[in-house]
Order: sequence, then structure tokens, then C-alpha cells
Amino acid sequence: MQRYFIPAEGWQDQYVTISGDDAHHIIRVMRYQKDDQIICNHPDTNAAICRITEIEDGVVYLVIEKWLDENVELPVQVTIAQGLPKGDKLDLVLQKGTELGAYGFIPFKADRSVVKWDNKKEKKKQERFTKIVKEASEQSHRNRIPVVYNPMNLTELIEESAHYSVKIFAYEEEAKVSEYLSFSKIVSQLSKKDRVLVCIGPEGGFSLDEVEKLKTHGFMAVRLGPRILRTETAPLYVLASISYHTEELGC
Amino acid sequence: MQRYFIPAEGWQDQYVTISGDDAHHIIRVMRYQKDDQIICNHPDTNAAICRITEIEDGVVYLVIEKWLDENVELPVQVTIAQGLPKGDKLDLVLQKGTELGAYGFIPFKADRSVVKWDNKKEKKKQERFTKIVKEASEQSHRNRIPVVYNPMNLTELIEESAHYSVKIFAYEEEAKVSEYLSFSKIVSQLSKKDRVLVCIGPEGGFSLDEVEKLKTHGFMAVRLGPRILRTETAPLYVLASISYHTEELGC
Repeated sequence: MQRYFIPAEGWQDQYVTISGDDAHHIIRVMRYQKDDQIICNHPDTNAAICRITEIEDGVVYLVIEKWLDENVELPVQVTIAQGLPKGDKLDLVLQKGTELGAYGFIPFKADRSVVKWDNKKEKKKQERFTKIVKEASEQSHRNRIPVVYNPMNLTELIEESAHYSVKIFAYEEEAKVSEYLSFSKIVSQLSKKDRVLVCIGPEGGFSLDEVEKLKTHGFMAVRLGPRILRTETAPLYVLASISYHTEELGC
Repeated sequence: MQRYFIPAEGWQDQYVTISGDDAHHIIRVMRYQKDDQIICNHPDTNAAICRITEIEDGVVYLVIEKWLDENVELPVQVTIAQGLPKGDKLDLVLQKGTELGAYGFIPFKADRSVVKWDNKKEKKKQERFTKIVKEASEQSHRNRIPVVYNPMNLTELIEESAHYSVKIFAYEEEAKVSEYLSFSKIVSQLSKKDRVLVCIGPEGGFSLDEVEKLKTHGFMAVRLGPRILRTETAPLYVLASISYHTEELGC
């Protein structure tokens, strides 16, 4: 069944009202009609099977038929701070990362990010990002849509990191040479209260200054397998591994 | 250090000769000169640091300086049979799957594959696929380049599957309702001799006929976490999980 995330103002008692892009999708793309069913997600993470009672002037009216008792969110909150990569790789990280259960995404303006963030285009970019994570949440049948933060520089990221209980960064050089907690050890010790922040460098990796500052502020260096992953593949490895460990391996 | 996979005929005693696209890349893109070092991989999976001794007429001559003792291949051989997806998603699976350690890829002509394989364009496609996995192997510093098979239909895939010791397919409906070995249970039991074949449906999933035939021929249904993954994300989840379990968790 098709799923839509409906803003809080669309919900009244046992009724749901959908307008805008979602209504367009329901009417024009899916060609749903009176009595067809869809799943509507409330921003509070609850979801219900709803039946269309009327379609008028591009607005869809529904009645709630059955609240669903399902939760497919990752047991731990994992936020990906992604060093701004080239081209449309951030789009890929947002889409695949959402499917894999990320709680949020922070675009990180890293020293070696080749792409400079254009503040003029920020609003349009944020709109595109919001659309990508909403659609990926609907398609993967998640209970909530991940947050996409405004881009942060290192100082802002470190300030933000105070809100997280576990902080790691992908840096296999460090992981090779010095004492470190392995990635699997960190994942094994995660509990449901944990908020995990994962920092991934851009194509050129982290600068030495960034490495020092991340370490000073409690970020642990990890390697993600023995092969060198591209910047956009690393967050997917992290999320898939945490899902595998907490949701499939049952630890 | 930049890495290149050099065909067997390029190796003689302690010398390596590189021509063609790789020579072009060395001379024109990387602008290497006499005395610069690169890593050359032999098709037998060994690799050596080599020093450029001469560049002449678009051919690069090198001397082997040091054989490397490194192996970053996944401990088990995992081949992905990917239901032919739309657009350039197969390219994504090949590139990311190579980084994540896949042993091989079989494009699978599934009942619900919207894209029909065009035999006329097959040679060009195979050339592109070969280029993608070679470049991804070089970038991720693998010891070998994954095989990309010619596309197979279900009958051919089942015939091929006789060469594998563990066969799974991603099918969360089946995994929900009936007795099944969980994905993590299967991964936990893998040993180094195992050859694993993982079958992934296209966008529309497997047909009931395919499900029946796969089950009859020993393929086990697994779910890959509780969220619905897109066809191109599923193989990455499988490979990352197997890498995590066998290379990071150390089981």
C-alpha cells in the first residue's frame, strides 16, 4: 500500500485531509479514487490505513480505518555528518541512508570539500533534500522522516556533537596505527538510549587539523572493512552494519 | 599510491609494461614521470610497488621494486545476481558492490525486469561494466577484479547456482510468514570455503513463479532489515553485512 507522510495540520479526529504535492501524486500519478486505501503517517511516527471518502478541487479527504502497530525505525539513532562530496553524491547518501534507517543528516563543510556551499542556492537545495528523504521514507515504509540539518563547519559540528553519546569518524589510517576501539566493538556496546554521530570525510578525506580536533572532542576513529570505500559508500556501510547487528543479528 | 590491474602479458620477470588506457591514464591524467611509483596488480591477485623506468610512445616501462603482502578480499566469495533494474542502477550496484568486496555479478533477466536486455548493445555494455569494476577495484585497492557474467535468465541462473554452496534471495514476504533461516544465522555459519550466491529481484520484486523455482532449487528467503530497500540498495546491505560480520566482528 502506498504511504504518505502528512503534516500535523492534515489530521482531525478520525479524518485526514491531503493537499499539495501529495494530493497531486494520489490523484494524477497513482490515479486513486473514492474507496481506495493508502497509509498515512503522522509526524509523531504513528501510521494508519485510511480510505479515500472524497476527492474535490485537488484535495483528498480520507477517514482513518485502522491504526497500525508497527515500528521499523533503527533501535539506535544514527546521524550521518557527511563531508560535502562532489556532484549529486549527497543525494545518493540521503536516499540510500534513509532506506537504511538514518535518523538525520548533517552536510559537513570539510577542509577538503571541493564543492563550496552556495548560500544563495541553499533554500532550493534544502527543498530538494527534504523531498528526497520524504520520498525515500515513504518508499521504505519508515515511521519518521530523517532530519536534514543546514550545513555545518567543523566548529558547528563539534558544538552539535555535544548532544550525542557515541561519536565516530571513518579514518582507516588512524585505525591502522594506534590503539582504537574497533567499529564492531562500538556497535556491540550500543544501547537503545544511544545517539550516534558518524562523521565521514569528503573525497580527499579529513585534513590533519580536522582529525586532531575530532579526536580531541571524543570522536573515535574506525575502519569500515579493509577495502577503501568512496565517501558516499562509507555511510551506507555504517548504517547497513548497525542495522545488521541490532536488527538481524539480534544483539 | 595509484593502483592498476595489469594483464598477464604485461609481466616479464622483474619488469612490467603498460600500454593502452592505463598508460594513457598514467601519462596524461596522473602525469607520472620517470622514477614515480605505482602499485601494479597481477591477475593472480598478487601486487607489487613498481617504479617507472621509461615512458616512450605511449607505453610505460616499470621495474618491480617490492611485492606486497596484503589481501583485502572478502573471506567468502559472494556473487550478486541482480534482477535487471531500470536506468543506470546496475552501474551503481557494480561500482559500490566492487568496493564492498563482491566476487562477481550476474545480471539476471527477471520476469518483472522492465528493461529488456538488448543483445545488439551487449558488447558495449559489457565493456562499460568491465571498466566500472576495474576502476572500482583499483580505487578500493582490491586484489582482484570481480567477474561480470553475461546476463542470465532464471533457467541459466539455476544451472549456474549448482556451483555455489550457499544460495539466498531477498524476499521479505516469505521471511515474514514461514519458517526460515535468518540472514544473520546464514552469515554466522559461513566458512572460508563457501561460495555464496545472492539473488535480488528487480524494482517489482520476484514473480511467484520465480519464488517457487528459487525455493525448489535451494535458495533461502531472507529479509534485509525491517525497512523496504530499493533493488539497488539490497545487494549493498548484503555485502556490507557480510563484510561487517566476517571482517570487523571477527566471527
